[in-house]
Amino acid sequence: MLSINTERLAIRLEELAQIGAREDGGVCRLAFSDDDLKGRNYVSDILNSLGMEVRIDAIGNLFGILNGTSDLPAVMIGSHTDTVGTGGKYDGALGVLAAVEAAERLIESESPRKRTLIVASFVNEEGVRFMPDMMGSLIHSGHYSINDARQDTDINGTTIGEELDRLSYGGKDSLDDLNVGCFLELHIEQGPILEDARLEIGVVTGVQGLSWTQVEVNGSTNHAGTTPMDRRKDAGTAAGRMTEKLRALPKQYPDLRLTIGSTVYEPGLINVIPERVRFTIDARHPDSDTLKRVESEIQLILKSEDVCQVDNHSLARVEPCTFSPSVVEAVADAAQSHDLSHTNMISGAGHDAQILTSCYECGMVFVPSRSGISHNVTEYTSPEHVTAGANVLLSATHTLLERD
Amino acid sequence: MLSINTERLAIRLEELAQIGAREDGGVCRLAFSDDDLKGRNYVSDILNSLGMEVRIDAIGNLFGILNGTSDLPAVMIGSHTDTVGTGGKYDGALGVLAAVEAAERLIESESPRKRTLIVASFVNEEGVRFMPDMMGSLIHSGHYSINDARQDTDINGTTIGEELDRLSYGGKDSLDDLNVGCFLELHIEQGPILEDARLEIGVVTGVQGLSWTQVEVNGSTNHAGTTPMDRRKDAGTAAGRMTEKLRALPKQYPDLRLTIGSTVYEPGLINVIPERVRFTIDARHPDSDTLKRVESEIQLILKSEDVCQVDNHSLARVEPCTFSPSVVEAVADAAQSHDLSHTNMISGAGHDAQILTSCYECGMVFVPSRSGISHNVTEYTSPEHVTAGANVLLSATHTLLERD
Repeated sequence: MLSINTERLAIRLEELAQIGAREDGGVCRLAFSDDDLKGRNYVSDILNSLGMEVRIDAIGNLFGILNGTSDLPAVMIGSHTDTVGTGGKYDGALGVLAAVEAAERLIESESPRKRTLIVASFVNEEGVRFMPDMMGSLIHSGHYSINDARQDTDINGTTIGEELDRLSYGGKDSLDDLNVGCFLELHIEQGPILEDARLEIGVVTGVQGLSWTQVEVNGSTNHAGTTPMDRRKDAGTAAGRMTEKLRALPKQYPDLRLTIGSTVYEPGLINVIPERVRFTIDARHPDSDTLKRVESEIQLILKSEDVCQVDNHSLARVEPCTFSPSVVEAVADAAQSHDLSHTNMISGAGHDAQILTSCYECGMVFVPSRSGISHNVTEYTSPEHVTAGANVLLSATHTLLERD
Repeated sequence: MLSINTERLAIRLEELAQIGAREDGGVCRLAFSDDDLKGRNYVSDILNSLGMEVRIDAIGNLFGILNGTSDLPAVMIGSHTDTVGTGGKYDGALGVLAAVEAAERLIESESPRKRTLIVASFVNEEGVRFMPDMMGSLIHSGHYSINDARQDTDINGTTIGEELDRLSYGGKDSLDDLNVGCFLELHIEQGPILEDARLEIGVVTGVQGLSWTQVEVNGSTNHAGTTPMDRRKDAGTAAGRMTEKLRALPKQYPDLRLTIGSTVYEPGLINVIPERVRFTIDARHPDSDTLKRVESEIQLILKSEDVCQVDNHSLARVEPCTFSPSVVEAVADAAQSHDLSHTNMISGAGHDAQILTSCYECGMVFVPSRSGISHNVTEYTSPEHVTAGANVLLSATHTLLERD
């Protein structure tokens, strides 16, 4: 049974983490920055050195191709190398470098490969500097256009188009001839479930759906000392009534994750009744029908407010996705064959694999995140779990490459 | 029975409102600004023209003195001429200009005046640019020192001392020889009670106490998608539990006014569980014992939180104050003699008169504020109510001047 080169992968994780390294030990490789380009080129240099054909599309997605012996649709593996501003060493980077390691082990071991293997690194998965997130996989799968993406601006008014041109970031490859059958992504869990259960591998069966709502509550500002309680239209009190009901929804809907992450008071002064409160609702559920029911409940709660005026609109919506049973099975079998403890689980976060379900059979492998922390300089996955995840990726990939 | 010159007062209210006039119709005369000085000098010029002795203390409080025929303690009347940044034409200005008008009518009518009359304009009542508010009356009554005040800085780091020197704002008068017995202040209500009851005059019997608390709730930030609900330490959820209980307190304590005016989430992102929430509590009640009980209830509620860590500290505390029965009676009699509808009431807002209760017998006259609005460019009191209030001030002052 094939296993990865643990030391080589560990060294590469450290080397990539030096690109955009922060003084606090974290990593900052915002999409379409100089360091992001250096990170991507670090990967392409290795792929080139392995003799793999490297192709780059117009947005800068990177593909390293290792031809198989048949014309059957290829197996694609990978993730992303951009990070959030205060990122860690593992989010995205692990999935790309483990995919590179899998390719190298398959080449070294001269294993038979019926299908072509493609190592992929998708751009701007994080969507911190430029929206939307998962941009590279959205463009690859045809859900977003390169022309629209080039117009996207960051907070300073710089467009992606300007950055692509300045950095010579994008390639000219249309990739129309690529024939891909499935996509498998190794990623840190970014949550505490595996660590809590003391398990080594998460066999990801799908990604929960997401519904983001922006709410604006309008009341009347007035003097906190002189205005009788029964004369008030306090936007903060109204928002409080609604958020209490919203926060109770997870008791009614198991597996619902609901978060009020942002709340802004105006004018926000100690002795002034708030006139306006804006808050956000992040609701996630793995089941499509249940998520829709939750969205209806949210609307009922917002409509129940009768003192202040309430407006709301959707900021984002992603349907829950279910991964391919055969890819999920390949992952579970790989974990079993390496004698690793594992469980089926739903991904709480969004990933490129979820976007690509629209065109490929997809699956994911999770490894534990210490304390469930990610998008943070203290993000950590132990060397043993890194190795375990990369071995599962390698073995599952091998199985998928050999499928008829 | 003496009455004011309605037209003269109306003209002066308009003239003073032109100093620091905003394009939107409001007024901005922040304390210790050029326009604030111009506003104060507008008043001192009138007092000088009336032949009154004008004296200015070190912080810039203005006193116009009209000697009586006896050595009995003087009657002081007045208010302030500084405004908030988006102020109106009436808050403070009405009380000062009506006091000037009362002095002028008493001079014109050659009315007997046993006691000395002092028209006062206290500086920095609003406390917007420099804390604390009611600074002029605090210094006048010995509760705050001119040396401490000179060190106070605004948001740009400018000290009051620098502004006093730059503007030659302060005088050199110690005022040690002033012998004051009582203080009476006309002010707009800044609340909706008189308007709601269709009454012309509020006979103010005291000012409610105030207790300001700053609360900080510390939880743990984490990913909104990947963190199970039962694993969260959501500072927003904890703050919501507490603020719901706090907002229910007024049902239990009639006459309690409780406001959560400011709430700030950190990091305040839609898909991140809030790590820290800071909110403020503004609690006011006219009864000292009840206010203390409410403060105990607030502490119990804050201590009941068991998921996140909660810290709190007092930002300000003012005991409820009760005005002098004889001054209150003089105000009620004056309203009666002018055949004006009136009611006894508690002031919801803080005023210089409240600070001065520590050294003088005090009272206040309220006139209606349209829709209860103040500290706002739409602040409005009708000409009829302006006249009514000024007439009550004049007649009550006359009564107090003639007391043995």
